[in-house]
Amino acid sequence: MLRNRTGEEPVIICETKAALRAARADLAGSVGFVPTMGFLHEGHMSLVRAAKAECDRFAVSIFVNPTQFGPNEDLASYPRDLPRDLAMLEAEGVDLVFTPGPEEIYSGGDVTVDPGRLGRILTGELRPGHFGGVATVVTKLFNLVRPDRAYFGEKDYQQLTLIRAMVADLDMGLEIRGMPTVREADGLAMSSRNVRLTPEHRAEAPVLNRALDTAEAAGLRPVAELARIIRDVLDGQQVEAVDIRDARTLTEVAGVPDAPVVALLAVRFGTVLLIDQRVIS
Amino acid sequence: MLRNRTGEEPVIICETKAALRAARADLAGSVGFVPTMGFLHEGHMSLVRAAKAECDRFAVSIFVNPTQFGPNEDLASYPRDLPRDLAMLEAEGVDLVFTPGPEEIYSGGDVTVDPGRLGRILTGELRPGHFGGVATVVTKLFNLVRPDRAYFGEKDYQQLTLIRAMVADLDMGLEIRGMPTVREADGLAMSSRNVRLTPEHRAEAPVLNRALDTAEAAGLRPVAELARIIRDVLDGQQVEAVDIRDARTLTEVAGVPDAPVVALLAVRFGTVLLIDQRVIS
Repeated sequence: MLRNRTGEEPVIICETKAALRAARADLAGSVGFVPTMGFLHEGHMSLVRAAKAECDRFAVSIFVNPTQFGPNEDLASYPRDLPRDLAMLEAEGVDLVFTPGPEEIYSGGDVTVDPGRLGRILTGELRPGHFGGVATVVTKLFNLVRPDRAYFGEKDYQQLTLIRAMVADLDMGLEIRGMPTVREADGLAMSSRNVRLTPEHRAEAPVLNRALDTAEAAGLRPVAELARIIRDVLDGQQVEAVDIRDARTLTEVAGVPDAPVVALLAVRFGTVLLIDQRVIS
Repeated sequence: MLRNRTGEEPVIICETKAALRAARADLAGSVGFVPTMGFLHEGHMSLVRAAKAECDRFAVSIFVNPTQFGPNEDLASYPRDLPRDLAMLEAEGVDLVFTPGPEEIYSGGDVTVDPGRLGRILTGELRPGHFGGVATVVTKLFNLVRPDRAYFGEKDYQQLTLIRAMVADLDMGLEIRGMPTVREADGLAMSSRNVRLTPEHRAEAPVLNRALDTAEAAGLRPVAELARIIRDVLDGQQVEAVDIRDARTLTEVAGVPDAPVVALLAVRFGTVLLIDQRVIS
């Protein structure tokens, strides 16, 4: 039987909202929460370890959320391996894992969270509905788990920025912790989608990190110049987006930035869209 | 000094979110919550008394929410009397009153709750944006007050239906209690707007209740027939809406209803729009 961090109580694995609420009510002290879509990698585990270090108890959800995938996106082929995920979480002493199916999470209603401007810009323009799906499912998970702190990777920087805005705008009263992107030895940002890269694309993919390193080394410069530096390194790739925005608000920046900016990249390798980001200050 | 229901502790009146969260953390046991726009009447007080009866502690908010008023609506003239409201709540032994200003509640973000279908139909068609404003502010208040139960009047039946749907769809995990409409001796549903009726309109206004009584006495009949019965009683008034809908979902009903319906009336008296409703089963 899986056991939690104390080694004394079994890990509680809940497939239903009712079971989760009951188990949550039994967790005393501060609760950290890491929402995931499973197929865990070192990026997720860095969030899990932060939750473990900073909170008395910690919970993880594993839910491949259909509403944040577009009709032509990779929902069906999104990688899944629940037994491996549970073993990885057990090794960290997780207290509670929520593994609902889509029919448990969604029951036909249409009240949702509207992510506003942060849902429409940048990736939101390429993926209409994506951030509305993210904001809504994260709201539901927050309401179910009622964490004191929730952990998100900086890799999906727009998502992290939106979650922070949502928590503030809807007075959710929890702390959002954004954690640095974890990378493979060659610099590629960890992602569940990396396993779907062909060997050739896998070899090329670290170019995102190299482009960001080059821009970071160049420092705060006019936005057009930063974008050109990045595009030069990405030359020959199927670049979907290179955006340089205000690091806090993701609004457009004109001329020479007077506050930190974030460079947001999206590059396609075959059917796989990879993203990466870097704050430049 | 105002004192709470125990007669021993002062009533806690909070103008800021921070003060409210701190005061809420000190309330032990179950907490009931009545969100209001102030200018309290017996309708509100019936909700307050239900909260008092059913919960260990109870909180009331008084906030005239600008985002649920349209540009040509009555925000500026909406009646206000905070000292009288506080005295009425003190008399019931309220534990906590939240009286924020608009700038405390809203700080410029644009993440909101999208009420979906229930926000677009019926009154939502006449008042675009109204139910989005309601859903968003109620979400914020729920997140701030964290009640176990929240109390709403059946009078605004569409609002009550939407709040129930929102709590279910976003897994808010509290109980919504819908309470019967409280009426004046002549049958007029209590409303903060009633004071703005001219004496002539005030004398005419009980016609809404008479129309609903007539329909209720007629019982479940084809929808067109029920609507005609109501419109006959309302003859000569400035009728904005007579809608007969499924009482649970507010969807349209064809022919003879096989489940309870709700009759929803909106009638204008000069500048004042009055609403009333009745479930017919």
